[in-house]
Amino acid sequence: MSERVLVSQLKSLPDGPVSVSGWVETVRDQKKVQFVILRDETGAVQLVNPATRPAEDGSEQDAAALALTDTISNLSTGTFLTVEGALKADERVKLGGVEIKVSNLTIAAAALPETPIAADSGLDKRMDWRFLDLRQRRNNLIFRVQTTLEHAMRTYWIERDYIELHSPKLMSSPSESNAELFSMEYFEDKTAYLAQSPQHFKQMAQSAGFGKIFEIGDVFRADPSFTSRHATEFTSVDAEISWIDSHEDVARMQEELLQTAIQAVKDKHGDEIQELFGLDVQVPATPFPRIPLAEAREIVKARGYEIPRADGDLDPEGERQISAHVQEQFGHEFVFITDYHPEIRPFYHMRDEQTGLTKSYDLLFKGVEITTGAQREHRVDVLEAQATEKGLDLAGIEHYLDFFRYGTPPHGGFGMGLARVLMLLLGESSIREVTFLFRGPTRLAP
Amino acid sequence: MSERVLVSQLKSLPDGPVSVSGWVETVRDQKKVQFVILRDETGAVQLVNPATRPAEDGSEQDAAALALTDTISNLSTGTFLTVEGALKADERVKLGGVEIKVSNLTIAAAALPETPIAADSGLDKRMDWRFLDLRQRRNNLIFRVQTTLEHAMRTYWIERDYIELHSPKLMSSPSESNAELFSMEYFEDKTAYLAQSPQHFKQMAQSAGFGKIFEIGDVFRADPSFTSRHATEFTSVDAEISWIDSHEDVARMQEELLQTAIQAVKDKHGDEIQELFGLDVQVPATPFPRIPLAEAREIVKARGYEIPRADGDLDPEGERQISAHVQEQFGHEFVFITDYHPEIRPFYHMRDEQTGLTKSYDLLFKGVEITTGAQREHRVDVLEAQATEKGLDLAGIEHYLDFFRYGTPPHGGFGMGLARVLMLLLGESSIREVTFLFRGPTRLAP
Repeated sequence: MSERVLVSQLKSLPDGPVSVSGWVETVRDQKKVQFVILRDETGAVQLVNPATRPAEDGSEQDAAALALTDTISNLSTGTFLTVEGALKADERVKLGGVEIKVSNLTIAAAALPETPIAADSGLDKRMDWRFLDLRQRRNNLIFRVQTTLEHAMRTYWIERDYIELHSPKLMSSPSESNAELFSMEYFEDKTAYLAQSPQHFKQMAQSAGFGKIFEIGDVFRADPSFTSRHATEFTSVDAEISWIDSHEDVARMQEELLQTAIQAVKDKHGDEIQELFGLDVQVPATPFPRIPLAEAREIVKARGYEIPRADGDLDPEGERQISAHVQEQFGHEFVFITDYHPEIRPFYHMRDEQTGLTKSYDLLFKGVEITTGAQREHRVDVLEAQATEKGLDLAGIEHYLDFFRYGTPPHGGFGMGLARVLMLLLGESSIREVTFLFRGPTRLAP
Repeated sequence: MSERVLVSQLKSLPDGPVSVSGWVETVRDQKKVQFVILRDETGAVQLVNPATRPAEDGSEQDAAALALTDTISNLSTGTFLTVEGALKADERVKLGGVEIKVSNLTIAAAALPETPIAADSGLDKRMDWRFLDLRQRRNNLIFRVQTTLEHAMRTYWIERDYIELHSPKLMSSPSESNAELFSMEYFEDKTAYLAQSPQHFKQMAQSAGFGKIFEIGDVFRADPSFTSRHATEFTSVDAEISWIDSHEDVARMQEELLQTAIQAVKDKHGDEIQELFGLDVQVPATPFPRIPLAEAREIVKARGYEIPRADGDLDPEGERQISAHVQEQFGHEFVFITDYHPEIRPFYHMRDEQTGLTKSYDLLFKGVEITTGAQREHRVDVLEAQATEKGLDLAGIEHYLDFFRYGTPPHGGFGMGLARVLMLLLGESSIREVTFLFRGPTRLAP
């Protein structure tokens, strides 16, 4: 293991013997010379071998050289191998300005000769063979960007004394609603439900006096939607903080968090994103613009789009319109929509005493909703009244209500879909492209 | 929000007006003076109020002072409140050397007068009221330690260019075995299974050319065990790396990782762990001791314990014995047990060509197994033969086998139970104590 050199390190090495390992991207098998493009997790390098072909006149030849040429001729795309050879700087080589003259080649695992997908195969076909699809540089970059984005968020929180939570995904009662719920048999004839969000538990952490928490974890929705933004399982980024005055305290934390995380992505991967996705990562300025929902609807209407919803909310086209407006007016990719009516919000959102509207927001990024945030109602009598008003059975949320009966501070938080953020950040068209292994109504494998 | 001062900051502030928020830990309601211990997420502080009682002779009194005294008399333990007052340094106050003379007190949410548990309630009762149980300083510290431990591990990996994975928990086929599996109805009459480990997917990432990955996420086992080490849902810490020569490369990474992470815990929380758990965190020296299984069994036998297992593995008492031996001989809390027979290992563990034993290890910490690690078999023909030998139906692991048909590098990794590490690190008796919300055969709520 110790002798292996990463492709990215080759440029800084002097000419001489090296050993690199990776998979075969292409083979150019010319009569007198063979070229192999070998890729590892850090880049690609050209291997070169002067071909030794069987002599037509039957004269004696170097058996090892013949065998090496034959091996290279028969390499399948995707074969993982280790090569030893002589590294040589050569300005004429477009790929990194170096090449390796092969002296020895060891196949770790050969690939079948027929690769079932190509880079331009349809999305569904590529998802069938996701592990091959992920060998593309562009796809590999997506997950390195995700890693950087997440680590920057966690570091932001940890520097501010947040506690990281791992809340259970198996629950005895629904977390958000009875709809779109996966259920299964548990022990002793009990039924377990898969958590649709860590909502209950992150609020519980406030009653437990944790103060500030975050969780990046799996949530599950038995959602039959086939849109580019929905999945039956996804990674949710959640935070919850105590002693807030309103949802504004949550929004301020979230905009600073996103600014920090996107800056980290730009710093580390900006050039590569430019090269492979053709876009410049924009680090958002704070504060993000804020627009009350009623005003947003007026703006969308004035732009000529009539939202065909009776409930007063925006629809996807309305979200695109208001984001386009914000981009034109403020040059900003993000916008907080605020002041939602209680009818279109869950029972646990706190309501403003003056306006009767909820102390909550949606955050849109490039025209797509990525977050709902809110101050939660922490007064148990008000909470019970709001739940009853929504037609909820109080017995079904008994454990949840208990959190508020033994003291709890005013608190609020947000939930954010990681794949949506990544999709929009990289200008991709679907969360399927930016999820390691997507899960949907017709997609449960591989 | 901005005016709130954390209790931990009080010591460094000059005498004068402050506002702190937290929950009531105790009230001492004396005739002439009232004391409240108020706790927030950073510590506890004493509030003091000169009591104003209704005059027996009916003379006029300050109504606000009377009301404040009455409010404090009626405070329940657990009530969350904000207090404004005058901070005063006073060496005689044992709790931090400061106290706050109350001028104004606002109740955010009152607690019911009867708290359903006490610090010395039984574990099951405390788990029923986990959010109250977690208000104890000791329990709060557990999750701050967990946060530090995890962040140090992730930082170790990210500094070494690992990619963070979020693999799906919903699967179309079992990940490890057909036993102890939760299953549920999915769309179109399909059955979904909950992942018992990210094993398949972290290996898939190697075929995808990711090189080095880690994941900290949920796994599920329909395990009817009631031991102190088992749960039906737990957080698994997983890593997988390519281009290894043997399981030794994995072991070396893991020991360095643990050394780094435990050092971070000691640096940040060592004093508090000493105070609340009565133990000194030991940062392990590397390399950790390694003992082949056969030799370990001999040592255990020589210590007078005959392992009552026919399959040649250690049992829990055997693990305690060998760890005791290592502690006595080498003064080390960790030990790698190596060279397991294929019969007691999964089909995908690579076997040593000379000995026929698997290239795998278990890692014990203070006498308890916390990890299995191994080099994986990456040659598809050998893998199929080993699966068939174990009686597996190859059709059932078809997607898994595909990963090895299109090229894959030699690779290996480990899985580690986060709660077990935390339990042992803090000298706790059960993973129930160190899990935010434990899930077991008879425990699905709150």
